[in-house]
Amino acid sequence: MNNFNYSIPTEVYFGKGQIKNLAEIANLGTKVLMVYGGGSIKRNGAYDEACAVLHEAGTKYYELSGVDPNPRIDTVRMGAELCRSKDIDVVLAIGGGSTIDCSKVIAAAACYDGDPWDLVLDGSKIKAALPVVTVLTMAATGSEMNGNAVISDMGANEKLGTYSHWLKPVFSIEDPKYTYSLPAGQTAAGVADIMSHVFEQYFTTVSGGFIQARLCEAILKTCIQYGPVAIKTPKNYDARANIMWASSLALNELIGYGSGMPWTVHGMEHELSAFYDITHGVGLAILTPFWMDKVLSDETTPKFAEYGRNVWGLSDADDDMTTAKKSIECTREFFKSMGLPETLTEAGVEEKSLPVMAAKLKNTFKKTYVPLSEADVLEIYQAAL
Amino acid sequence: MNNFNYSIPTEVYFGKGQIKNLAEIANLGTKVLMVYGGGSIKRNGAYDEACAVLHEAGTKYYELSGVDPNPRIDTVRMGAELCRSKDIDVVLAIGGGSTIDCSKVIAAAACYDGDPWDLVLDGSKIKAALPVVTVLTMAATGSEMNGNAVISDMGANEKLGTYSHWLKPVFSIEDPKYTYSLPAGQTAAGVADIMSHVFEQYFTTVSGGFIQARLCEAILKTCIQYGPVAIKTPKNYDARANIMWASSLALNELIGYGSGMPWTVHGMEHELSAFYDITHGVGLAILTPFWMDKVLSDETTPKFAEYGRNVWGLSDADDDMTTAKKSIECTREFFKSMGLPETLTEAGVEEKSLPVMAAKLKNTFKKTYVPLSEADVLEIYQAAL
Repeated sequence: MNNFNYSIPTEVYFGKGQIKNLAEIANLGTKVLMVYGGGSIKRNGAYDEACAVLHEAGTKYYELSGVDPNPRIDTVRMGAELCRSKDIDVVLAIGGGSTIDCSKVIAAAACYDGDPWDLVLDGSKIKAALPVVTVLTMAATGSEMNGNAVISDMGANEKLGTYSHWLKPVFSIEDPKYTYSLPAGQTAAGVADIMSHVFEQYFTTVSGGFIQARLCEAILKTCIQYGPVAIKTPKNYDARANIMWASSLALNELIGYGSGMPWTVHGMEHELSAFYDITHGVGLAILTPFWMDKVLSDETTPKFAEYGRNVWGLSDADDDMTTAKKSIECTREFFKSMGLPETLTEAGVEEKSLPVMAAKLKNTFKKTYVPLSEADVLEIYQAAL
Repeated sequence: MNNFNYSIPTEVYFGKGQIKNLAEIANLGTKVLMVYGGGSIKRNGAYDEACAVLHEAGTKYYELSGVDPNPRIDTVRMGAELCRSKDIDVVLAIGGGSTIDCSKVIAAAACYDGDPWDLVLDGSKIKAALPVVTVLTMAATGSEMNGNAVISDMGANEKLGTYSHWLKPVFSIEDPKYTYSLPAGQTAAGVADIMSHVFEQYFTTVSGGFIQARLCEAILKTCIQYGPVAIKTPKNYDARANIMWASSLALNELIGYGSGMPWTVHGMEHELSAFYDITHGVGLAILTPFWMDKVLSDETTPKFAEYGRNVWGLSDADDDMTTAKKSIECTREFFKSMGLPETLTEAGVEEKSLPVMAAKLKNTFKKTYVPLSEADVLEIYQAAL
């Protein structure tokens, strides 16, 4: 097990009616920038309830709406400008990962003199940020409890992740009921995203991370148990609650502490989103089984067999290689069962882009679970086409 | 799943050589009260290394040594007095749960005008505390990451737990190497304590806590995997690291959020310790299987069967009741295999005390996993004799 520094300062108010605790925002300041995407937060009740609490708490709030999935650097620039011109104290994100990511970088950009894209390229340039508070309405990215943010510059076909301790929300409201109205496709994509976060930390060459591996399996089993339930019965509270809490625990750093290493599939997916603006979780669900096919080898077989037995309950009677292959098939079938597309073609990706995307990643995966060359990446993309 | 508020503010520096980060204590003040027990921290290197870092950091430190296992309220009174007379800024605990618990209540008592025992009887009276920092040298109680403290008044045969958010350490140093020199008996007792913390949260009637149950199982499997390894090869780093991290995660609130309820076996054990001053983990290891025997019923069988299959890998082929009974036998055999005593008699407890202890608990377990009357408690004690 590697050394690590545990620091998860975000407080979470989890459960039904927890929006009342949004009143705590008044401790952070009186002028709030409320950031959100489209109209979904008006349909699921989060917007009205948040406004009522903010009003009651005596805060003054400004709105920045229209944050896109795969949030744009242009929106960040606009938000940072608003923070400065209105003398904002707190940034409040109401939405899913895109809105929260965008809000985080707005909060940092408001305290930075240069162009916000600098902070996306290099998180260490973030030396301060306005406090961020979130009201989560989609379970997927874990952004509600971590210091990560992914921002796109669509003009340049760039989608990049940044990180800073400064970006960790002060507190987050997680009410599973806000996710009742999510369409099945978004629920499925969210579950795939959560599982992918776990895979990126579960498949590691760091030895001795036994407890971390078991924690990963706990989250994966939760997704497998409740993903289909939430799709079939969208208002099943326990399903929504388990998935929402899984999303936070999958990426609040906990399961990676001591055994984490650089990620793979997320990097490959970011290229897809940057070129085609497809839903992040969809891209991950498509690529993951093909990545697994590619990295399965004599060396990695024991880990995949462990995955198959501990997560999918595959029989001890089979040998490791058989179990490993079955575990990949289970993964593929699970994503398919949730209605997610299986190929890049279905998601609108064209063959001609594959070499361009692979080329951009030629030096990215040198220290990953299984290092991948540009040719390896292209092979995975092509297999997934 | 129930609502919950997640708040785990303690930072942890985990791993080899992390004592260097003790220098951060200088951010909290310049006058430190260093609290510890007997000579073990001088043998395991923690004392010398901590002193060197404190010296280098320019802090001035006073020492309060001799904290007993089952720490005494008298020691707390002495420590609080020292804090006031020396104008202490920070309390630094170096040791295991007893030392940390004692230090926490000292830190609170230093900011309280009345007698410290008030704060043990009622944690809500704690309205402030000096910052607490810990250097952990035994994996067991989880005190390094939570707001709990258990203090005894041996004269009155009282051993009581208190809780306050104010008691949560600001940061903790967890270097598994400091546990290399623990005797086998203490290692085993620590593992039993960790497992008992998990059992108290795993066996719950709150429905829908799927992810919590899986997290519990992750920690239990870690204890089962590495407890025997640490006993056999005390300097196995990964064994010590997994057990140490398990101790923190078992009782930093995480696994109980959303599904926790009042505890049972700890309450029963506190009476043993209060009357006989036996090692907490030993008392828990003795009582746990007998408590399991007692609460196993048609109603609880599915949960015990789940425990047997998911934690002990028992076959799906057996029916629930068979699996449930086997799971209890596995638990009993596991504690025995680590060299822990199986009966209260072995631990020096006399039959004549049992009714007195049971009587003290007559109203304690009315809302537990399975409610227990005074007669039920006595029956468990007698079975364990």
